[in-house]
Amino acid sequence: MKNTDDNNQSSYKLKLTLKGQATRARIIEAAADLMAEQGIGRTSMEDVQRQAKVGASQLYHYFDDKKELVRAVIAHQAEAIFEAQQPYLGKLDSFEALQAWRNLIIEIQSGRQFKNGCSIDSLVGEIAESEEEVRSELVSCFAQWEGEISRGLHDMHARGVLRSDADPDGLALALLTALQGGLLLSRLRREVAPLATGLDAALGYIRSFAAN
Amino acid sequence: MKNTDDNNQSSYKLKLTLKGQATRARIIEAAADLMAEQGIGRTSMEDVQRQAKVGASQLYHYFDDKKELVRAVIAHQAEAIFEAQQPYLGKLDSFEALQAWRNLIIEIQSGRQFKNGCSIDSLVGEIAESEEEVRSELVSCFAQWEGEISRGLHDMHARGVLRSDADPDGLALALLTALQGGLLLSRLRREVAPLATGLDAALGYIRSFAAN
Repeated sequence: MKNTDDNNQSSYKLKLTLKGQATRARIIEAAADLMAEQGIGRTSMEDVQRQAKVGASQLYHYFDDKKELVRAVIAHQAEAIFEAQQPYLGKLDSFEALQAWRNLIIEIQSGRQFKNGCSIDSLVGEIAESEEEVRSELVSCFAQWEGEISRGLHDMHARGVLRSDADPDGLALALLTALQGGLLLSRLRREVAPLATGLDAALGYIRSFAAN
Repeated sequence: MKNTDDNNQSSYKLKLTLKGQATRARIIEAAADLMAEQGIGRTSMEDVQRQAKVGASQLYHYFDDKKELVRAVIAHQAEAIFEAQQPYLGKLDSFEALQAWRNLIIEIQSGRQFKNGCSIDSLVGEIAESEEEVRSELVSCFAQWEGEISRGLHDMHARGVLRSDADPDGLALALLTALQGGLLLSRLRREVAPLATGLDAALGYIRSFAAN
């Protein structure tokens, strides 16, 4: 099992040649596509080999087993999500910024017609209870996401934009919850309403703590 | 493929002997347990046979294929969810009733330590895009759920408990969205906070439309 905490992962990555990095990235992307399309359970290592056009020895050179590949896919999806939400994420420190971020998310998801999309959340349902490592990878991705939202709300709180009785951490968690539920239902229904309505309600609730 | 719209399904059910009904129920329950535990993708018809202690000919007598079994599992889970939410669901027509329903949900999910639980939502992530029939089964389960919530809010609106500018349908969808996102994150983190915080924010938002 390769070491997978952040530092070791990047030092491991550094050791790879550029060609090796490209191959590893191609494998992850192929796996991410397949898992988003047909589910983790139905995606075999052989499927990934075929899709990424690599041999078994190459595939197992980079990933000891499917579990390790799933973790890499989750990290990759999380990175893609954070990248897509730039430049807003981390600067959600005004009602205008929150609204602009909400609009960006709706735009991204509508552009994808609610298919696949930011799939770390859509992977949650598939994580069997025994897969503790995969679960903790997902937990930490969501914690990072929540932290980015929370930071801006704390800032608004400190600046007095939000009333002193507002709980920035609670509001951040509520917003993330609405976002995840909205993504889930929008993806299921293939329409924007759940995502838009859920986010608007959470933002409306946050706005109800505006200082004046 | 057996006919599966509501009327035909119940007439089909009527044709089964009591013993046949028991066998069918046992198969569904075994499949539901397995799919909740290890995911749909990883659950084979052979697994279900073994768990339900039935032969292949019996299994395929009741369900032509795995897809049909999955649909039956979804319908079964939806029924269990609605039953568990009685006596509140369908009578969510006051702030007190909404709060009591919220408490019941938290209690049910905490009792399950956020494992498995009401699993129709946890199945969403696994529905591959090609499985249109399974998707539409899930869509209709959620629509029914949303309808039950919406009914009470419409009642509160009509009675003037909610202000005239409140949108009962939008509020119901926002509440369902918060509930689903909360279930997803609470299940992932194995703690009550996301579910409780998400529901409380949605209820707080609904309360912000209180008439006085």
